[in-house]
Amino acid sequence: MRPRSCSWSSTDSAACPSNPAAQPSSRPRDTPNLDRLAAEGVLGLQEPVGAGITPGSGPGHLALFGYDPLRYQIGRGALEATGIGFELRPGDVAARGNFCTVDADGTVSDRRAGRIPTEAARELCEELRRIELPGVELFVEAVEEHRFLLVLRGEGLSDGIEDTDPGEPGSPPRDVTAERPEAEATADLVRRFVDEARARLADREPANMVLLRGFARRPDWPPFPDVFGLRSIALAHYPMYRGVAGLLGMASREVDGSLDALFGAVEAAWPDHDFLFAHVKGTDKAGEDGDFDRKVGVIEAVDERVPRMMELAPDVVVVTGDHSTPAALRSHSWHPVPVLLWSRTCRPDAADRFGERWCRSGGLGLRRGRELMPLALAHAGRLAKFGA
Amino acid sequence: MRPRSCSWSSTDSAACPSNPAAQPSSRPRDTPNLDRLAAEGVLGLQEPVGAGITPGSGPGHLALFGYDPLRYQIGRGALEATGIGFELRPGDVAARGNFCTVDADGTVSDRRAGRIPTEAARELCEELRRIELPGVELFVEAVEEHRFLLVLRGEGLSDGIEDTDPGEPGSPPRDVTAERPEAEATADLVRRFVDEARARLADREPANMVLLRGFARRPDWPPFPDVFGLRSIALAHYPMYRGVAGLLGMASREVDGSLDALFGAVEAAWPDHDFLFAHVKGTDKAGEDGDFDRKVGVIEAVDERVPRMMELAPDVVVVTGDHSTPAALRSHSWHPVPVLLWSRTCRPDAADRFGERWCRSGGLGLRRGRELMPLALAHAGRLAKFGA
Repeated sequence: MRPRSCSWSSTDSAACPSNPAAQPSSRPRDTPNLDRLAAEGVLGLQEPVGAGITPGSGPGHLALFGYDPLRYQIGRGALEATGIGFELRPGDVAARGNFCTVDADGTVSDRRAGRIPTEAARELCEELRRIELPGVELFVEAVEEHRFLLVLRGEGLSDGIEDTDPGEPGSPPRDVTAERPEAEATADLVRRFVDEARARLADREPANMVLLRGFARRPDWPPFPDVFGLRSIALAHYPMYRGVAGLLGMASREVDGSLDALFGAVEAAWPDHDFLFAHVKGTDKAGEDGDFDRKVGVIEAVDERVPRMMELAPDVVVVTGDHSTPAALRSHSWHPVPVLLWSRTCRPDAADRFGERWCRSGGLGLRRGRELMPLALAHAGRLAKFGA
Repeated sequence: MRPRSCSWSSTDSAACPSNPAAQPSSRPRDTPNLDRLAAEGVLGLQEPVGAGITPGSGPGHLALFGYDPLRYQIGRGALEATGIGFELRPGDVAARGNFCTVDADGTVSDRRAGRIPTEAARELCEELRRIELPGVELFVEAVEEHRFLLVLRGEGLSDGIEDTDPGEPGSPPRDVTAERPEAEATADLVRRFVDEARARLADREPANMVLLRGFARRPDWPPFPDVFGLRSIALAHYPMYRGVAGLLGMASREVDGSLDALFGAVEAAWPDHDFLFAHVKGTDKAGEDGDFDRKVGVIEAVDERVPRMMELAPDVVVVTGDHSTPAALRSHSWHPVPVLLWSRTCRPDAADRFGERWCRSGGLGLRRGRELMPLALAHAGRLAKFGA
């Protein structure tokens, strides 16, 4: 066993101009260090979920960690908890909540209460936290604007509760209903929460009612450290990425948003881990903003720090993303994500630069995202022969 | 929702000589319009069924329409009906029939009755149509040469009937046998049909008996318009292609064999449809005839009409085939089929011409045929993000 094995950087992808004319810039990017890894390593493309499917960050990360996102799906409530760093325990039941506006007759007129500011929602959450439910601990956490997270913690709770959110305005919130008999007790508690919320919010227009949906537990999945036999850690600024890692039983550490902090965190975590996941957010943000040049700049800034990472003498380095975010589309997209895999055991291909065009004809070909974990393990000498 | 979305042309594939020396011609083909789409779009290769599998037209089209041909298999009888444009209704039972030759002692000596001309078969079918079966409507339709289609229409019919065709000469036709108890009543009817056919054909040598196989119903598959949310239509000269579309609940329109008629039909159907499938037959026919130059000519003729199609301002154009038909092999083949996908949202690759050699290194890579539908939908902005 080698003490240190894989280092994994997610830089999302380089720009994908939808149209040659729309490409915001064509200044050559300067990435000598990534290019050297590309020359020594092997390139390719990966689709995190499947052909034509644009991944959310949750499924995108599951794929990077070797889990098929179509098989391992997170309920909306659990995902919401993950997104704000609320650590769900086994047995907890979580739901995604909306503050909404209802008319005098109880009809939902605005499912988002005019998108009230997060600060206002935070105060309303404090009010709702005062609700007391027998035998159950209650958490109500503001998320962003009108969104909040509801968590019930106690014995014998069930997530078999139907959405109260009617999905569109024009009808009253749906009654709290159990999907199956064993959820009746939980439904009673939720009904009580909703009734009290209605009373407490009555004069808080526009946010005078709540809608709940996506009741879910923390998923019970095979833990990453057991599946792969790796002491693993996720290093990221945003809670969503650490949250997904946490659902898989990986350790995680919050780092501030700078690249130096991120690479410093890699160095700090190095001695005690075999698998390190470092999430670079800047490329994705620049893509969402349609800022091609800034995206290039972030990739160049990562490149400058690559030698620092290589001094750690990793067995395997993988550079890829949890999805593409073409600057031209200003959003996540379905386009295959570039991959660079570097190791002393790879069969090099003809590529001597890192970029979409070299990845297209790289030696790894086009693959599902979940294939990267077994490939990384193989290159680290961590997989035994299959059969004799 | 956009009013018009995908336009889809199937030109089968360009020639694939099995051996460079065998290539019948090497005159450069002239396809400036397809080349322009290739330069702006993205190329690749697709295998309709799987590696090494030569697709029939049925499975080839199912793959193009996004259905896995290994999962969605059409019974032989239903496929035969589809091929001649006979519209099977739910509840009908169809079988593929052969006129055959039996000896004086009843042994099959020729399973194809010397491949009698279609005209002769047509007359025999008329004779068989006179058979009366209690409570059941009977259809007997000539297909080509010794082949015919048998359809029973009525209440409570079952397709659980074993083949009567022994598969090779030297033994008598098999008895009509129910595969399961609920098929006994249908087996009685088919037995009666076979007995009467034997009597009526006794002096019609060489076609003095019938063999039946592939009893099947119309398949009950999720309809294309529901699965993909598209108002769809198939435009084709041959009934087989419209038939497969019809089994999927797509509309279809017969067009005469000229390219101008086909492109005119696209224009006519454009305002009322989101997904248009236009089938070019000439490339396949030229391939079957081993006529490389004619195949090139058909591709060039399609190319001339591409600007006409682009004036409709489609969101997505896909040019591919339901299978390869290399002139050098004079038949359908297993070789991956070239694909061109054009859209304003594609990530362009290095290809600036449309042809097999550029498709090989195109940005779409090598894929299963059924992945083209989700890719086309994604490029048209028709798919939501998966997960948050």
